[in-house]
Amino acid sequence: MISQNIYQSFKAMVGPGRVSQAPEDLVVASYDASKNLARPEMVVKPLTATEVSRIIRLAYENNIPVYPRGAASGMTGGTLALKGGIALDTSLMNRILEINPEDMIAMVEPGVVVADFQKQVETHGLFYPPDPASAEFSTMGGNVAECAGGVRCIKYGVTRDYVLGLEVVLPNGEIIHTGSHTLKSVTGYDLTRLLVGSEGTLGVFTRITVRLVPLPEKVETLVAFFTNLHEVWQFSRWLAQERIWPRALEVMDETCLRAIRNYQPEFEITPSARTMLLIEVDGGQAETTLLGQKIHTQLEAMGALQTIRANDAAQASRCLRIRDAPYHNIGAQYLWSIRKAISPALYSIAPKKISEDICVPRSKILKILEIIKELESKYLIPVAIFGHLGDGNLHVHFLIFTPRQETNLDGALEALFRETVRLGGTLSGEHGIGITKSKYLPLEVRAGELKLMQQLKTLLDPKGIMNPGKICPE
Amino acid sequence: MISQNIYQSFKAMVGPGRVSQAPEDLVVASYDASKNLARPEMVVKPLTATEVSRIIRLAYENNIPVYPRGAASGMTGGTLALKGGIALDTSLMNRILEINPEDMIAMVEPGVVVADFQKQVETHGLFYPPDPASAEFSTMGGNVAECAGGVRCIKYGVTRDYVLGLEVVLPNGEIIHTGSHTLKSVTGYDLTRLLVGSEGTLGVFTRITVRLVPLPEKVETLVAFFTNLHEVWQFSRWLAQERIWPRALEVMDETCLRAIRNYQPEFEITPSARTMLLIEVDGGQAETTLLGQKIHTQLEAMGALQTIRANDAAQASRCLRIRDAPYHNIGAQYLWSIRKAISPALYSIAPKKISEDICVPRSKILKILEIIKELESKYLIPVAIFGHLGDGNLHVHFLIFTPRQETNLDGALEALFRETVRLGGTLSGEHGIGITKSKYLPLEVRAGELKLMQQLKTLLDPKGIMNPGKICPE
Repeated sequence: MISQNIYQSFKAMVGPGRVSQAPEDLVVASYDASKNLARPEMVVKPLTATEVSRIIRLAYENNIPVYPRGAASGMTGGTLALKGGIALDTSLMNRILEINPEDMIAMVEPGVVVADFQKQVETHGLFYPPDPASAEFSTMGGNVAECAGGVRCIKYGVTRDYVLGLEVVLPNGEIIHTGSHTLKSVTGYDLTRLLVGSEGTLGVFTRITVRLVPLPEKVETLVAFFTNLHEVWQFSRWLAQERIWPRALEVMDETCLRAIRNYQPEFEITPSARTMLLIEVDGGQAETTLLGQKIHTQLEAMGALQTIRANDAAQASRCLRIRDAPYHNIGAQYLWSIRKAISPALYSIAPKKISEDICVPRSKILKILEIIKELESKYLIPVAIFGHLGDGNLHVHFLIFTPRQETNLDGALEALFRETVRLGGTLSGEHGIGITKSKYLPLEVRAGELKLMQQLKTLLDPKGIMNPGKICPE
Repeated sequence: MISQNIYQSFKAMVGPGRVSQAPEDLVVASYDASKNLARPEMVVKPLTATEVSRIIRLAYENNIPVYPRGAASGMTGGTLALKGGIALDTSLMNRILEINPEDMIAMVEPGVVVADFQKQVETHGLFYPPDPASAEFSTMGGNVAECAGGVRCIKYGVTRDYVLGLEVVLPNGEIIHTGSHTLKSVTGYDLTRLLVGSEGTLGVFTRITVRLVPLPEKVETLVAFFTNLHEVWQFSRWLAQERIWPRALEVMDETCLRAIRNYQPEFEITPSARTMLLIEVDGGQAETTLLGQKIHTQLEAMGALQTIRANDAAQASRCLRIRDAPYHNIGAQYLWSIRKAISPALYSIAPKKISEDICVPRSKILKILEIIKELESKYLIPVAIFGHLGDGNLHVHFLIFTPRQETNLDGALEALFRETVRLGGTLSGEHGIGITKSKYLPLEVRAGELKLMQQLKTLLDPKGIMNPGKICPE
């Protein structure tokens, strides 16, 4: 409980405009993209690391839980104030502090929106590849806390692969600096990567240093529609045989296509299409253009019902008003907008959906798809699947229409996770564990590792005030 | 102290052939590439994780230190038996357990030699990029323990970026499994990367799962000689401006060239050359060939005294008997052999050398080179510099001829590290801390972070038996 005394101390510390107990502010801070709700007792919006440190120190002294949050776009409830306390909103710490083209690094505050950062980086001819579907609104702090992935991981890796160093406020209020500003550094234990993906349970990031890479000269984006997933799978094997390393390879199933047709009929998807594949390759100008042609030819040879090859990146970026884009002179952004319409489109056909993000070794993708079909029949819950075919990270959406399906959901989820792990896969490719997957964690993480994780948590946060109730089952 | 009783227990546990207290075995296990010496009381060569676990459990129960070692090619004394106890030699655990082209992953035992693994991987059209200079003899276990870097990091990252999962025997003998077999996984804290680079102080790796990438179709290797480092620097800026992302960009200074001329006169290096630059780019066949031509032209335009462009990778690989290779029809391997001759060549001109591996942000390279020149004058120790220009990781070799220079060395090293850190750099890009840099660690790692590292060590190794005396100053 935050007493009035303590609340006044926070107010005196931060100033009245950035700390609040007003119901409307608490409501705003009680949700995230998991659609669970938990109301904090206070919201504070710090501006500096020193402020974050002072807030957390006071919370620590008074055993008040602290929940870091950025855009609250996390899918697994990672920001929810389960045990009362303080929602620490970093969205005002949103400065890009440095983009250094010579060192190929950048330093940002945690509240910087990922897409804003990407755009700034690109003006320097550089590239920050991590690209979760939430990039237009999610923050760098949240991306580091969850180790966000996205569509380009097959070639470019995940957020962890770009973070070089962190400024972090620990759960006792101490400010530490981890990592370095260089591409290589092996001085002591890797505190940086211990903190990346720790879901706000070990501290609050106040500065993030990332490495950048050269912006590829050219991107080729293609979409193809097929009659079944098996053809898509064959095509992905062809890519591997040809040693083509796409930067994105996205698939969506029949249910997704049906939802999109319903939601955005102007996409005019070929009626007989049952699967859509989106392929993106990048690299040098000439080579990538040739590769685009080669992929186009192969897609048609392998029986694609329709193949659309986007124009170059320049044209794609002009093509912002996607609904007005002429169908046969189409930009990459337009093609991506079909992919990005899935999530809202699924809501248009189901009142509730549970989105999972299992990841399996690539060779097990067909097997897990088969298993999901069986689960669909067994638990009588329709499933929509899309995801990152290239890295085996599939978004499995359970569509809930009836109370019976709601009841069956737990069994279906547990069966899905159990089978995923049995195939050598993982519960979460990119959404994290948060609260929604906490109880399933022991299916994948064995007792010894789980104990070690709990010990690490206790070491860094002995009072358990930092984002309590997340990741490890209690 | 290992009593005769306990020695007999180890013998009964492992079998007499793989456990020894014979002086000749102890001598072999008492050195590493740091050229320091410390003799263990016993050497054991386990074959399985279960054996490693049983050995460590018995050591744990009896408070006997354990020092994991592979090829003992580490540069910072990481394997030395500072406090008696057991040298745990993993060199017999040298099986490549799996190379899975479809999943693009591989699983190896820790004793697998890196170059052997790379060659096997390449037969599948795949690529394991980390490539320390020791690759021909260092082991995968050692590479993971040190987070080895090498010459391809500018484009491909370091060992950490390839390790997906580990089987580890903890200091109490418990076997745990971290990470996953998938390219993405965010289930709990990142134990894998906490262990990568932990220099054998947190446990012994018994299985290592790494991700692989497609083998580039084509590699272009070029060498150019210049009259000064400033020209080389200008060239590296040109690469950045052109957004060319080399996979290697190696530089060596005048002292290195002098040593090589002395050591291998058959290289016939242009007499007026004062600096050598080695550039390697890779990618698709056509594009990379064009890029090779473009770089060649630019090198000549920027005043290179001599430029040599290697033939394609196929020809280079045929060119194994490098000394017989005809000079003007030269393979990549031949060009690399000049670079790789530096270390032995420096011994041919100095009886003792101390090799450092500082890393600075790329924009600070000229500045640190200036500072090193000043240190050379101030401490009267000749310095030879080569290294990875692309990622700012410079190998600074102090050449010791006299007792006076020996005495001055400590001051010179401390000044070098202090200036490196002041420029935003790091004490060690890839060699680790071990014992030789332990006392300098507080120059870079502040008290809070150091305390956290010590706490992590105590958490995982409460009795301090696992590779004691390494990394953190005692």
